[in-house]
Amino acid sequence: MLPVATDEVFRGNLLRVQVERWEEPDRIREIVHHPGAAAVLAVTRDRRVVLVRQLREALRESLLEIPAGVYDEEGETPEETARREVGEETGYRVTSLRRLGRVYTAPGFADERIDLFLAEVEPESDPEEGVEVIEMAWEEAVSLARGGRIPDAKTAIAIFLASAQGDAAGPPTGGI
Amino acid sequence: MLPVATDEVFRGNLLRVQVERWEEPDRIREIVHHPGAAAVLAVTRDRRVVLVRQLREALRESLLEIPAGVYDEEGETPEETARREVGEETGYRVTSLRRLGRVYTAPGFADERIDLFLAEVEPESDPEEGVEVIEMAWEEAVSLARGGRIPDAKTAIAIFLASAQGDAAGPPTGGI
Repeated sequence: MLPVATDEVFRGNLLRVQVERWEEPDRIREIVHHPGAAAVLAVTRDRRVVLVRQLREALRESLLEIPAGVYDEEGETPEETARREVGEETGYRVTSLRRLGRVYTAPGFADERIDLFLAEVEPESDPEEGVEVIEMAWEEAVSLARGGRIPDAKTAIAIFLASAQGDAAGPPTGGI
Repeated sequence: MLPVATDEVFRGNLLRVQVERWEEPDRIREIVHHPGAAAVLAVTRDRRVVLVRQLREALRESLLEIPAGVYDEEGETPEETARREVGEETGYRVTSLRRLGRVYTAPGFADERIDLFLAEVEPESDPEEGVEVIEMAWEEAVSLARGGRIPDAKTAIAIFLASAQGDAAGPPTGGI
């Protein structure tokens, strides 16, 4: 499945944008190519979730999210990106990590894939400049997600998946 | 919260792409402006979920999703877009509709917002060309989502939200 014609209209540091012509049905698609990312539901040993609040320029507002980072380091595995980004963004160190799933965020116009991880973490250093670290009880995070009050897609899905895969007391970080 | 400088690098039929310079912290952002969309978890009276499978050119693969449509009709409300897209894509008619929530799909580089709805539907006509309509039991959809086997973000979140807001037997379409 490939387009019959492709015109690259923008090549930036993060994104490439292409106008593609597809057949059957015959149509034009404006497509954003993104390198993909890892995102991490980071939970402490006492079952507190480590979230970040930061300005999202695209939305012109601050958003509560799980730590995440783009695949922009050559040769780095998704697991390595996940560990690095948790450290850089939050100042927490990942002590164990397992895969939760993968999500396509905006398939109507972009190829972004986000690999979701569940990590056990412990505090180590200071967070990144411009990032506010927010800890909350696991039960509160689940309650926010179930109430539709986590608007960031990857964050809501990571919480729902960990909740579905865990026991009633919290996410299954004990076994990872 | 606004950028100090903006350079529009692409203006298409669906997307606009801008390179923006922001201060504090000083950084450049490549941002995709999208009109937003409505997406609908459509459920029949006998608790079957109506999904669509279609080629997503950006991913070079077909994806299982809830019906959805971009806000590209001037003067149309989100609810009207939701009803129209269910009809056009699936051939089902919406008999009742309520809001489930809102999701930001890719806040790292795009401003797309998707309004999620839960609808009760009944069969009426034929689906859109190029769209395969797939009906499945509500319990099966929930099981797929909980198992991490619904990679489309809006679809997984709509199922999780309806499941969280409903009773054990299924989504709360009875009351809408």
